Parts: sequence; structure tokens; C-alpha cells
Amino acid sequence: MTTRLDLHVRNAERFRSLHHDALPLILPNAWDAASAATLVAGGFGAIATSSGAISRSLGYSDGEGTPADEMFAATARIVAGAAAERGAGLPPVLVTADIETGYGLSAAELVARLVEAGAVGCNLEDSDPRTGKLMSASEQVDRIRAVVRAAHEAGTALVVNARVDVHVRQDGPEHSRLERSMARARLYLDAGADCVFPIMLSDDADIAAYVKGVPGPVNIMARATTPSLRRLAESGVARVTFGSGLHRVALTALKEAAERISRGEGP
Amino acid sequence: MTTRLDLHVRNAERFRSLHHDALPLILPNAWDAASAATLVAGGFGAIATSSGAISRSLGYSDGEGTPADEMFAATARIVAGAAAERGAGLPPVLVTADIETGYGLSAAELVARLVEAGAVGCNLEDSDPRTGKLMSASEQVDRIRAVVRAAHEAGTALVVNARVDVHVRQDGPEHSRLERSMARARLYLDAGADCVFPIMLSDDADIAAYVKGVPGPVNIMARATTPSLRRLAESGVARVTFGSGLHRVALTALKEAAERISRGEGP
Repeated sequence: MTTRLDLHVRNAERFRSLHHDALPLILPNAWDAASAATLVAGGFGAIATSSGAISRSLGYSDGEGTPADEMFAATARIVAGAAAERGAGLPPVLVTADIETGYGLSAAELVARLVEAGAVGCNLEDSDPRTGKLMSASEQVDRIRAVVRAAHEAGTALVVNARVDVHVRQDGPEHSRLERSMARARLYLDAGADCVFPIMLSDDADIAAYVKGVPGPVNIMARATTPSLRRLAESGVARVTFGSGLHRVALTALKEAAERISRGEGP
Repeated sequence: MTTRLDLHVRNAERFRSLHHDALPLILPNAWDAASAATLVAGGFGAIATSSGAISRSLGYSDGEGTPADEMFAATARIVAGAAAERGAGLPPVLVTADIETGYGLSAAELVARLVEAGAVGCNLEDSDPRTGKLMSASEQVDRIRAVVRAAHEAGTALVVNARVDVHVRQDGPEHSRLERSMARARLYLDAGADCVFPIMLSDDADIAAYVKGVPGPVNIMARATTPSLRRLAESGVARVTFGSGLHRVALTALKEAAERISRGEGP
């Protein structure tokens, strides 16, 4: 008999292996059941969540403004919305959850909540959303180790994407930022992270250097200012996400429809 | 001292009066806090909710698939999201809630839940979402009377928009549909409804006849096949809503972004 946990392990292992393909794993970010269903209908078999977009859709501020219960409930709705849209006979949609720094929950509780929500992976951020300051690298190494150990003890195989916030927080002098970011990335991979995510790293040469400089999969957030998806693939980027960019696309379309209505046109 | 209920009464009366202006009340429909904030930022001081869009965003089927608790929680988030976006010094954003047939709740409970969520009005549908059949007109008259009475007894002034589902349900022979719909509309207005809403009534001449034929405000749902907003205004339509049309606009933009990503372009 295949248990729910067996299935979770199998899905997590399938998700992990996608970080080691020749082509990057492209994960568009959903924020609710309808956006998840839309992405799955568009052919995506794996998606990420965006905590920023989820928070905005629920009316909370980004940076852990959303209560943990609501964030995990939203994650579960995304998993369910994706699953409901997936055609019969296809493997389940894989969903990785943006859970910021983990809402102050213990590693064991985080793992339990992620498995309960049906997420096969998570991000873990290394800066404090309240202060905007980076945690010490050793503190984050301990946290990653604890989550990986808790996942192992729970019999799961959660994929941990360790976010490196040196760039987004503009931490320290600019000239040494890339090196300090890669130093953290190496420590996080060594601690058991499956992928590292230098969010807001955008420059083409820096991205190529990062991929060469760290011994594991690198996640780049694609934005208007980042190289094309094709170029990111050439640079060896393992995983591409979009943060709340797709939510902004949807809200921009709504804004434009509201403007048309204001002008007396149709929506 | 102005109590919360005083404020609700004042807002509901302001909302009611907007149904009697020379120009139609244009109410774009939100489905979550972010969409509500976007519409308010676009200059709308009054908005409606769409139960269809809310259900889809939460992963439930339309037609009362969403549990009442979740629908009212979503309504409260829309009210809060709209209020948070509203500039200081402006009157509060007015929100009317699409609550389908009322989820089997008593009139008194419906009123209490609407006031608690901060909605100043609601729709009430006259067909059964499970069977797709129209309730008898007298049953719906009793329901409208009960809600109006419950609102009065609670000391509020809720604006009731009585939906007439003859057209959307394609009820009875087509040649007599307009007359039967208007007959219901007259009964509902007589029972205390503030506005009547023949959803899916789309033909220009029919809309003009409806406005002339019923002694109260008429709500038309604008779609691609309805006359322009300017023409609806000329016909004397009192209120225009968009159902889940704006949600579809947002999801279409997301779908197109997903397609661009699939082609290796940016979002």
C-alpha cells in the first residue's frame, strides 16, 4: 500500500531530480487556487508559491505579516487547485512553498505543516523580515540543518531552497557582495540545502560566476532586468522563479480593465 | 459617539442613494484584498464582490460550493483590502456582497454576517444553485421581506439587490421570458428590494424595456455582448456590475504570461 507519506517522498524526490536536469526547472509562482489552476492548465507540472503575492491577496503585508496558519492554508489551497486542474494519468503537480523564514515555527513543526499542505519543498530566508538585517551565516546553517534533519526524521524528503538575502538587503559593501553571497551559498549547500537562491542577483556575468562558484543548483528570480530565460539556461542556472511578478501581471491587467471601465468602455 | 452600527447605517444609506443618481452606479467586482485594493486605487469608491471569482480563487465550485464561513471571511478581507487602500479623508469604500442564495442561513444571521463583514448590501438569487431551477416568486418575496425586516430589526439599512434568474436559467418559453422576469422584479421591489438584477439580460431593447417596465433601479451585468456603458446609462440602467469578468481578465493575463514563459520569453 502506498501511504500519503510514501507519495510525498516520491514527489519530493522527483522534484529534487528536476534541479539536476540539463535545462532549468521553470517554476511560475501562484498565489491562490485559481492562479495555480491557470498555470497548470498552461502546461506547468511544477509551481512555486509567492509569499508576497499570497500576503497581498489576503490583505497582509509582506515580510511575515501573514499568520502562519493562513499562509499554510493558502499553500494547501494552491496544492488543491493545482491538483484539481491536472489531467488524469499525469504525475501530481509539484508545489514548493515560499514560507519566508518559517514564522517562528520549530523545524519539526515546519516540516509537518509543509507535508500536511502537500508541498514538496520550501524556501528558507536568511534575513529577518522585521529588521531587514541578515541573520548570521552560522545561525542559518543551524536552521537549514535542523529542517533537513526534521524532514529526515519525519520520513520525508523535502527540497530545501536556501535563500541568500545579501543582494536583496544590499548587505555590506557592494564590491564584496557577490563573494559574501557565494560564501553563504556554499555553507548552506554544505548544511544540506538542495538549492541556493540569491534573490535579486540580476547581472548576467554575476549569475554566470555564481553558478560556477557554488557546488550546487542555483535559483534565479527572473524579472525585467534579468537575462532572458534562454541566457539563464546557458549560464547553467538550475531553477528559475518569478516571485510576485506574475501576480503583478494579473493586477496590472485588472488595473487596465478598471481604467477602461472608468472611461466608459467595457472591461 | 458614532457606533459601528451608526457608521454602517450611514454607509448603507449613502450606497442606497447612489442607486438613484442620474448616472449609473458602476461597481467593478473584486475577489480578494489585492483586487479590491487595485480597484480602489483605480478610483472606485464602491465595489461589489463576485461569488464566482471568490469561489474560484479559493478552489471551490461556483453555486454555493464555498462554505458560508469562507465566503464571509473573503468578503471581510475584500472590505479590509479596500479600506486599507482608500486615502485618508475620503468616505469609506462601499462594498456589496455577492452571497448567492444565502447559504441556507436565516435572514437574521445573514444580516448579522454581512454587517460583521462590513458589507453595506447584498445580492439575493432566486434560483437554487443545486438544481438550477427557479424558486417560486412567492418564496423569494418571503425571503426578501424577511431579510429587509431582519435588517430593520438589527438597526441597519442593508441595500438588497434582488437577482432575477429567469434569463440566466433560461426559464420557460423564451417569448414570455422578459415579461415573466419583469413580473418577478416588480414583486421583489414591492417586497422591499432596493434594486433588481436580471442577470444575463443583454439585448439593448430588452434592457430599455426592463428599465421602463419596473418601478425601481435595475442592475445590468456588463459583458462583451451587452451594450456599452454609455448606452446602458442612456437606457436608464441604475447599476452596472461585471460578475467574474474582471477575474477572467486577470487570469487571462496570467495565462498569457505563462505562455510567454513557456516560449522562453520573460513573464
